[in-house]
Amino acid sequence: MDKIYAGLIGFGTIGAGVARVLTENTQIIKERLGVELVLKRIADLDITSDRGVEIDKDILTTNAADIIDDPQISIVIELVGGYEPAKSFILSAIKKGKHVVTANKALLSSHGKEIFESACKNNIDVAFEASVGGGIPIIKSIKESLCANRIESLYGIINGTANYILSKMTNEGDEYDSALKTAQSKGYAEADPTFDVEGVDTVHKLAILVSICFGVNLLPDSIFTEGITQITPVDIEFAKEFDYRIKLLAIAKVKDGALDVRVHPTMIPANHPLAGVDGVFNAIYMKGDALGPAMFFGKGAGMMPTASAVVGDVIDISRNIISGSHMRVPPLSFINEQKNIDVKETDDVKVEHYLRFTVVDSPGVLSAISGILGDHDISISSVIQKGRSASGAVPVVVTTHHAVTKNLKHALNKIDGLDVVLDRTLAIKIEDNLED
Amino acid sequence: MDKIYAGLIGFGTIGAGVARVLTENTQIIKERLGVELVLKRIADLDITSDRGVEIDKDILTTNAADIIDDPQISIVIELVGGYEPAKSFILSAIKKGKHVVTANKALLSSHGKEIFESACKNNIDVAFEASVGGGIPIIKSIKESLCANRIESLYGIINGTANYILSKMTNEGDEYDSALKTAQSKGYAEADPTFDVEGVDTVHKLAILVSICFGVNLLPDSIFTEGITQITPVDIEFAKEFDYRIKLLAIAKVKDGALDVRVHPTMIPANHPLAGVDGVFNAIYMKGDALGPAMFFGKGAGMMPTASAVVGDVIDISRNIISGSHMRVPPLSFINEQKNIDVKETDDVKVEHYLRFTVVDSPGVLSAISGILGDHDISISSVIQKGRSASGAVPVVVTTHHAVTKNLKHALNKIDGLDVVLDRTLAIKIEDNLED
Repeated sequence: MDKIYAGLIGFGTIGAGVARVLTENTQIIKERLGVELVLKRIADLDITSDRGVEIDKDILTTNAADIIDDPQISIVIELVGGYEPAKSFILSAIKKGKHVVTANKALLSSHGKEIFESACKNNIDVAFEASVGGGIPIIKSIKESLCANRIESLYGIINGTANYILSKMTNEGDEYDSALKTAQSKGYAEADPTFDVEGVDTVHKLAILVSICFGVNLLPDSIFTEGITQITPVDIEFAKEFDYRIKLLAIAKVKDGALDVRVHPTMIPANHPLAGVDGVFNAIYMKGDALGPAMFFGKGAGMMPTASAVVGDVIDISRNIISGSHMRVPPLSFINEQKNIDVKETDDVKVEHYLRFTVVDSPGVLSAISGILGDHDISISSVIQKGRSASGAVPVVVTTHHAVTKNLKHALNKIDGLDVVLDRTLAIKIEDNLED
Repeated sequence: MDKIYAGLIGFGTIGAGVARVLTENTQIIKERLGVELVLKRIADLDITSDRGVEIDKDILTTNAADIIDDPQISIVIELVGGYEPAKSFILSAIKKGKHVVTANKALLSSHGKEIFESACKNNIDVAFEASVGGGIPIIKSIKESLCANRIESLYGIINGTANYILSKMTNEGDEYDSALKTAQSKGYAEADPTFDVEGVDTVHKLAILVSICFGVNLLPDSIFTEGITQITPVDIEFAKEFDYRIKLLAIAKVKDGALDVRVHPTMIPANHPLAGVDGVFNAIYMKGDALGPAMFFGKGAGMMPTASAVVGDVIDISRNIISGSHMRVPPLSFINEQKNIDVKETDDVKVEHYLRFTVVDSPGVLSAISGILGDHDISISSVIQKGRSASGAVPVVVTTHHAVTKNLKHALNKIDGLDVVLDRTLAIKIEDNLED
């Protein structure tokens, strides 16, 4: 064997990056792999636009079947995104005996079970490094390098858009809307940013990480998810007073034998390595029982970093082809799903909270609030109340000790019904000890 | 196959960690690997001391041959350290058809060529993740995940002892000697700390990283190496005034087609992610042409983190055994040594410098110094001269623009010969732009 042929379905930004890496780094890849990696065909509905990559126009096709049905092609790269037709492409490729590389986190997090089952049945590799953390080699590290460990916890900044917005609010005092606009103007956020700012993209990626860290298959819909649209500059400033930073975190940790999995804006200590991860960068901070803490940091999105991960996977699979070792590593790290792990309801999780009440500036308000909190078994660790406002509405900020989330929900329902409370109370979860 | 047998030579701290991981995580490893990993024998000259690990005493032996000659054992873990007998153990194991896992950076950096050649000839895997960065999966990430990239640069904090001392000096104002004593009392530094503080350990690890990043075999002796023993609190403070931090860095980067490799205390921007890596932590910051910048952070030493890497390698090799894919990845990432890369003499490298002159506090001194610097084509970017001292000796601190290292050497020789210069001038290299 002196050549391995790959086909690419989806010639968007990442696809163009993949074509560029395979074209520009042909030689160095060959020196590492031993054979030449050839991008034989590219399928996309649009085969006329210029992607700024030098490729032979003859390899372009509008028909994905030209790749899936080509007997010479042994690796199919799916970069279409979304559920369909991506899923059909992947399943057809698997049935045709082709290995698959994909960056499709939405698809894998929701339909991964079906895809991986089909892959296992057909002795096919499905690699997906680019689905989480862009160029950061987090998937392979967890599945291979760290697999002597029992993973204890994982905290990830895995959405560059949300992190860019929060960084801008933190470092430049921007309002949410203005930070979002800047992100959009720089191409870091879509016209409709819902997926990124509401935590949807983050929870897709977290579901994938959970499956390989713990062997547990959780659908994204079943994971507690909260976005960053409620955060105001006032909260960012209060966070600083408490020596915290606010980050949209993907969290998964084992405590008392049960798995605690959630996505939400989180206050973390300002001196924690994750707090310094700014802008579009991603980072995954994790703990293994032997490893201790470790952090992986890099560009979590973008044409070339993501292409680095995609082509890394193509090379990995090529090595399996050369050595005849398909399925050398179970696609989701564990050979079988782990059934004996309980997953906690986030309602039952005990967490510290930051609470910002918007109240009438009058005596007795704090006492009424703290009374209700106390009735729900929530104790206060600190209070900040300052200044007055012309409108009569003032913020009162409270941080709590560890309290059951459900109790807090009930307490806030009561508190928000008080006449002296003028607006919906904002609650942000705190993770004070990421080593825990 | 339902069991894979490993033997461990060297039952010190890391060896005990390996035994512990293999004992405590037997079940989870089996769920990932599919077969049971059995630590069949442990060889050490001392088989009586208690290592705090529960093992069957019958598996202990004082004779390494009991492992190397055991036909049932397919993986030999070498944790003896040093050159001999470690090298003989490894070469014998290879000849007996056993795969090898080692953490021995001193040996690999100096005798790697012989070991890897023998391994390739015998179709044997030699894995060495634990040799650099402890539990951080940097070796496998470079050899596999990032191998679509042309690596452009690498900056590593890869010696925890030196980093602990510099952190202590930076954060608590300690003198070097006092910081070293604390490190020793905490077990972070050896009684004879030479290897760590003089950069010897760092250059061993750098030589390994260079071999897998660039395919170039450099002996540690050929790499410019400078330790941290000359650094004083005064330099730490001046660094802060320039918004720098001082770190002992392993540096390797390609510039104008040539490789620039060196180890020395380095001033880096205080806001760079590496600057925040404190204490015994390690981090490798690197750039690939597609990947962009990325950083790997974690515990670079210690019983359990290092054991995490060792057992990770054992599992990796076990997967090769199960799938019959030995040598699936070339041991040094490239199939052949890369002969077409020039390696720069550090003397010829252009670098910015921090210079601290100890001079007589009299007029004309700065002019004499800057005159000599100018004569050697070295231009000054900033000067700090302050205060007076009772002894008459004052520090004058200069930072230079990029200057040829050799020119600086000549200039400093001249300057240190001046009557007004009272002590040897301290020069610290600056890396202002780690993205470069």
